[in-house]
Amino acid sequence: MRFDSFKIQHDLVVWLTVAGDKIRQNMADQLHVKTKSGRNDLVTNRDKEIEQFYVEQIRTNYPEAKICGEEGFGDDITDLSGLIFFVDPIDGTMNFVKQKQNFATMVGVYQDGQPVIGAILDVMGQQLIVGGPENGVLFNGRPLIPLADRPIADGLIGVNSGMFAHNINHVQQLIETSSGARVTGSAGIEFIQLVTGQQIGYISNLSPWDYAAGQAIGAALGIETHTVSGEPPSLLKREVIIAGLPEIWRNFYQLQN
Amino acid sequence: MRFDSFKIQHDLVVWLTVAGDKIRQNMADQLHVKTKSGRNDLVTNRDKEIEQFYVEQIRTNYPEAKICGEEGFGDDITDLSGLIFFVDPIDGTMNFVKQKQNFATMVGVYQDGQPVIGAILDVMGQQLIVGGPENGVLFNGRPLIPLADRPIADGLIGVNSGMFAHNINHVQQLIETSSGARVTGSAGIEFIQLVTGQQIGYISNLSPWDYAAGQAIGAALGIETHTVSGEPPSLLKREVIIAGLPEIWRNFYQLQN
Repeated sequence: MRFDSFKIQHDLVVWLTVAGDKIRQNMADQLHVKTKSGRNDLVTNRDKEIEQFYVEQIRTNYPEAKICGEEGFGDDITDLSGLIFFVDPIDGTMNFVKQKQNFATMVGVYQDGQPVIGAILDVMGQQLIVGGPENGVLFNGRPLIPLADRPIADGLIGVNSGMFAHNINHVQQLIETSSGARVTGSAGIEFIQLVTGQQIGYISNLSPWDYAAGQAIGAALGIETHTVSGEPPSLLKREVIIAGLPEIWRNFYQLQN
Repeated sequence: MRFDSFKIQHDLVVWLTVAGDKIRQNMADQLHVKTKSGRNDLVTNRDKEIEQFYVEQIRTNYPEAKICGEEGFGDDITDLSGLIFFVDPIDGTMNFVKQKQNFATMVGVYQDGQPVIGAILDVMGQQLIVGGPENGVLFNGRPLIPLADRPIADGLIGVNSGMFAHNINHVQQLIETSSGARVTGSAGIEFIQLVTGQQIGYISNLSPWDYAAGQAIGAALGIETHTVSGEPPSLLKREVIIAGLPEIWRNFYQLQN
């Protein structure tokens, strides 16, 4: 039986709303903060609790699905066959710990590698974006319309700070032709800014759970996602992702050659 | 007669609240956007209207005061004698135009070059911070307590994107020892993040109206402001400002020598 994309969308709205409430209600609690791959790659007990909550919901409601979760409570994903939930319980954990704002919780759902539904919640801003190519996109329950392409000179570009500082893939030259750079520290917040037209591009080194939801939502609104070589993102490994209006990719591609 | 700093504080709260309401109520209106010093240095009719509103209030209530305003409706300030109001009607005009969030309105008041009161309103976030060294600081009416110094490894640093990209004053090396860089595009938002402990430093090339309010508030909470040479900011010209906990300046200074 094929899944019902509107049921998945409904379930994501409920789960993300509950997850956001859990995170906000416990903001005053002491966090247990640990490092992962490096000094500034953080994980907290809250990240793990929220991922476990999502995993329980998915296992109960979609027992046939596989789960790719940032904190490792999901499955070991080696291919994209079937229904896969990409889960990022707290995206922008550094912001969560230091700023207590500017972080997101998000889930992206794919069938055989094709986007079905993505959902991103700006937890403190209480902005929930959900949808996909078949269903369209809702922003706090109101439909978003597709974005028209715009000249690169007319918009802001979000960028990973390391890529910007070291001019990886000529991103400094790209950004010089735009309205300027912003560094936010959360892929989820960046994708919200993209799909609402606040930024026209976002370039960063991302894991599948960082862009799965944003890619599914963006595909419904005219936001493209590419790797540096021009291949579609693999959804299987960490890689540089160029997301944005078509104009962003055209300009990025020209600078590589 | 010496001015009453609590009356000034009260007046700033009223003026900034009214200014913020005016800006939010007219967010859907078409803006007239012009460039100033360069392609990405914007001014709108709203910037001008709000500066005129502040200037009218100041002229009426403090006729003896001088005004230094970003959009030129104030006075030509050549020395710091007497009472001076530094006015930035919309700080982060690019964000105002493109993002429709992440911008501020702010006023800083100085007597003979010494900070009296600063006020910063995150217009869309509706966070109003007001106070100074004598009065203490209120955040939406609640007192803020002074910040303890912290190791640079323990906090985020806001930075000007051009200084970061081109490693001006070794800011890349400074940031590598921190929790990371953020680029927000509004000095007012950066100072709010500083005085609420969300960031530990902010480094940018700023005009007096960009830092006058934040410096006055910060002086009450343990946030220092320096120029590259270690002199206090001049309040008379555009220059690089290093704002933050004492640890930020100590580390910045070591990197210059």
